[in-house]
Amino acid sequence: MVNPLVNSPAGPVVGMVGAGQLARMTQQAAIALGIELRVLANARDESAARVIADTRLGDYRDLGDLREFAKGCDAVTFDHEHVPTEHIRALAAEGVAVRPGADALVHAQDKAVMRERLTAIGAPCPAWSRVSSLADVEAFAEEHGWPVVLKAVRGGYDGRGVWVCASADEAREALATGIALLAEAFVPFEREIAVLVARSPHGQGVSYPVVETVQQDGICVEVIAPAPGFPAEEAAVAQRVALGIARDLGVTGLLAVEMFATRSGLVVNELAMRPHNSGHWTIEGARTSQFEQHLRAVLDLPLGSPSLAAPVVVMANLLGGPDPDVFSRYEHVLANDPGIKIHFYGKAVRPGRKIGHVTALGTDLDEVRARAHHAAVCLRGPLNG
Amino acid sequence: MVNPLVNSPAGPVVGMVGAGQLARMTQQAAIALGIELRVLANARDESAARVIADTRLGDYRDLGDLREFAKGCDAVTFDHEHVPTEHIRALAAEGVAVRPGADALVHAQDKAVMRERLTAIGAPCPAWSRVSSLADVEAFAEEHGWPVVLKAVRGGYDGRGVWVCASADEAREALATGIALLAEAFVPFEREIAVLVARSPHGQGVSYPVVETVQQDGICVEVIAPAPGFPAEEAAVAQRVALGIARDLGVTGLLAVEMFATRSGLVVNELAMRPHNSGHWTIEGARTSQFEQHLRAVLDLPLGSPSLAAPVVVMANLLGGPDPDVFSRYEHVLANDPGIKIHFYGKAVRPGRKIGHVTALGTDLDEVRARAHHAAVCLRGPLNG
Repeated sequence: MVNPLVNSPAGPVVGMVGAGQLARMTQQAAIALGIELRVLANARDESAARVIADTRLGDYRDLGDLREFAKGCDAVTFDHEHVPTEHIRALAAEGVAVRPGADALVHAQDKAVMRERLTAIGAPCPAWSRVSSLADVEAFAEEHGWPVVLKAVRGGYDGRGVWVCASADEAREALATGIALLAEAFVPFEREIAVLVARSPHGQGVSYPVVETVQQDGICVEVIAPAPGFPAEEAAVAQRVALGIARDLGVTGLLAVEMFATRSGLVVNELAMRPHNSGHWTIEGARTSQFEQHLRAVLDLPLGSPSLAAPVVVMANLLGGPDPDVFSRYEHVLANDPGIKIHFYGKAVRPGRKIGHVTALGTDLDEVRARAHHAAVCLRGPLNG
Repeated sequence: MVNPLVNSPAGPVVGMVGAGQLARMTQQAAIALGIELRVLANARDESAARVIADTRLGDYRDLGDLREFAKGCDAVTFDHEHVPTEHIRALAAEGVAVRPGADALVHAQDKAVMRERLTAIGAPCPAWSRVSSLADVEAFAEEHGWPVVLKAVRGGYDGRGVWVCASADEAREALATGIALLAEAFVPFEREIAVLVARSPHGQGVSYPVVETVQQDGICVEVIAPAPGFPAEEAAVAQRVALGIARDLGVTGLLAVEMFATRSGLVVNELAMRPHNSGHWTIEGARTSQFEQHLRAVLDLPLGSPSLAAPVVVMANLLGGPDPDVFSRYEHVLANDPGIKIHFYGKAVRPGRKIGHVTALGTDLDEVRARAHHAAVCLRGPLNG
C-alpha cells in the first residue's frame, strides 16, 4: 500500500518514466489532484518535458538513472513499455512501488509471454505459435491457412513490427529482419474494439465503456465511444474479459485490451498497460479521464467513475502532414466548431506522426463523427505540401 | 492582432504574471491547446510554479522584471490585479501585447474608477461616493441611510477591504486605517449572481450561463450553475450588461461581473478581469473551461462554446481547517463519491485559506449540492483540530 503522505506535505509524488504525450496529458490530471508529477525525459524539448516543472533528464535503459529518478516517488509508472524488465525488478527489490510491476508489465512487453499467459487463463486468442524459421511459418500456415500474421515479439507499435503475410515469400522478408517473431492466425474481424480498465493494488477494478477503434495502415485514426450498436451483452463479456486479464496478470494502473469482434465472438489482439490512445476520448468524454484514473490506480486511491459525459464521444488522431505549420490552421478549426476540443502534444510535425488529437461530443453519431473528422482533416492540412 | 506563430514553432507563448491557482489551472488548458504557458512567480513553491516548466522568478512590481518576462511572449496576461498600471502602460508602449490592457484593467484595480465608468456607461450601480472623512460618510448616510458599505479603493479581495458600517462609530474604524475609501449604499439583495464573459481583441464576445454565488464572511463558498430558478429574461439582461461592460471598457480576456439580484433589478457589485472563482465550475461543467477561454481570448483565437456539460453543476471551495493533513481525508472523499472532481492548488493548508475546490455534476440540484458540500466539508476536516 502506498501512503501518499510519506514524501511530501504538498501531495503524493508520482514518477513517470518517459516524457511523451501520455505523460504530458497525465500532467493535466496531476495538477487537479495535487499530485506532483515527475518525468524522466531524454531531452528538455520532449512533449511532457515542455510542460512539467519536475522534469529529470536520464536514460530509461540505465538502472542508475532510474534509481536516482525513483528517489522520493510514492509510485513509479510508465509512459511507454520499453524499460528493461530486469531494471523494474531491481527497483522493486529496493522498495520502489513500481506500478505496474515487472510480472504484469512483461505481458505488454513480450507478445509471446502475453499469448502464453492469455492462453493459460482462458482469454480468447487467435491460434499462435513462436516461429524462428520459414519451415515454422509454413507449418503454421499448413494448419491455419494464409495469410499468417507475423509479429515482433518485442518492441513493435503503431503497425511497426507487424507483417501480414499472404505467402511464404512475404514471410521470408519478415524473417530476414532477424527479429524474434511469433505467428498468429489472421482474424477475419468485423470491427475492432478496445476495453480500457483500471486496477488498483488493493484490487479495485473499473471498466470504461467499450469503444470502437478505426485503424488505417496500422495506426488508430478514430475512436468512437460507446462502440455504436455493440450489443450490451457482448460489451459486458468484453469488459469481463478485460477485468479478468487485469486481475489474473496482477495489473496495477491502466490496462487497454484491444480486441477483434468476429462473427464467432471476441479475440484479444493486443495489451497495453498505461494510458492508451483508445482512451484519449475520456479527457472530456468520461467523468474521470484515463490519466486521472491511472494516477489514482498507481497510488492505490479509490478509482473514479468511468461513466460517459455525453451520449456520443468521438476522438480523431491528428497526424502530421507535409506542411508543418499546424497553428496556421488552428484558428479556422476553432472558429468552425466552438465545441471541438483540440489537444496538441507539443511535438514537431512530421508526415504521419501523431501530433495531437481532437474530441467531439454530442448526441448524434453521424454529426459528432463528421465534426471530429473535419477538424482532424483541416489541421492536417493539404496532403500535397 | 496576435500572430501566434511569431515566436515559437511549437505554439504560441502566453506569459501570465503571478503563479497562484489561476495560473496553475490555466496550465491544464495550455497543455491541450499546445500553448506554452510561462509564469512570473515570487518563489518556486508557489501554486503554479510547482507545475509549470517555464517558471520565471521575479517581482511583478518591478518594470525590469516584467520586461524580461515579456520577451518572446505572444501575449502577457495576469493571475491577479496587482501589477502597477504604469508598468502595464510601459510594456504596451514597448510593443508587448498586454491583455487586458491598462485602460481596461484599471477598472478592476480601482473601485472608484470602476464606479465612475460604470455610471457613465449606464450600468446599474448602487449609490456611491468617494469619501475621505467621517463628515463625508455621515453626509452619504444622511442621503442613503445606514448601513453604509465602505470599500478600499484599491487592493481588497475575499472580503478584505470591505466594511459594512451600521453607524458612524463603525465608519470611524475603517477611516482610521488611512486607506482611500469609497462609500456605497447597502444593497438589500435577494441573492448574488455572477456573469462570466470573454472578449477577444477583434471583438468577439461570449457569455457563460448566469451562476449563483454563495458567500460566507465575504468569501465565496459555493457556485451553482446555472443559477437555480433564475428567470431566463433576467439572465439575458445580466449577460447583456456583462457583455456591454466588456465592450465599453475594452476588456480582452475574461471579465467576471458579480451582481446583486434585488427586487428592483440587478446591481453590479464587483469586476474581475481574469479567470475567476465563480468560473471554476467550467473546468468540467462547460464545454470550454474559463481557463481555455481566457487563453483563446488573449491570443485573439476564436472563442469556445460556453454551454453547460451537465444540467446542474456545483462548485464548492475547499477552505483550510486547523488540521493541515488534507491528503489523509482525500481517499475517503474519492471512495464516497466516484464522480466528485477534486482540485487541489498545491498550497500549504492554513485555516480559512482557499486550498482547492470540488465540483459535482448531475441532474438533481439538491443531490448535486449535497455531494459538493459533503466533499468540501470532509476535506476541511474537524473544525476543532
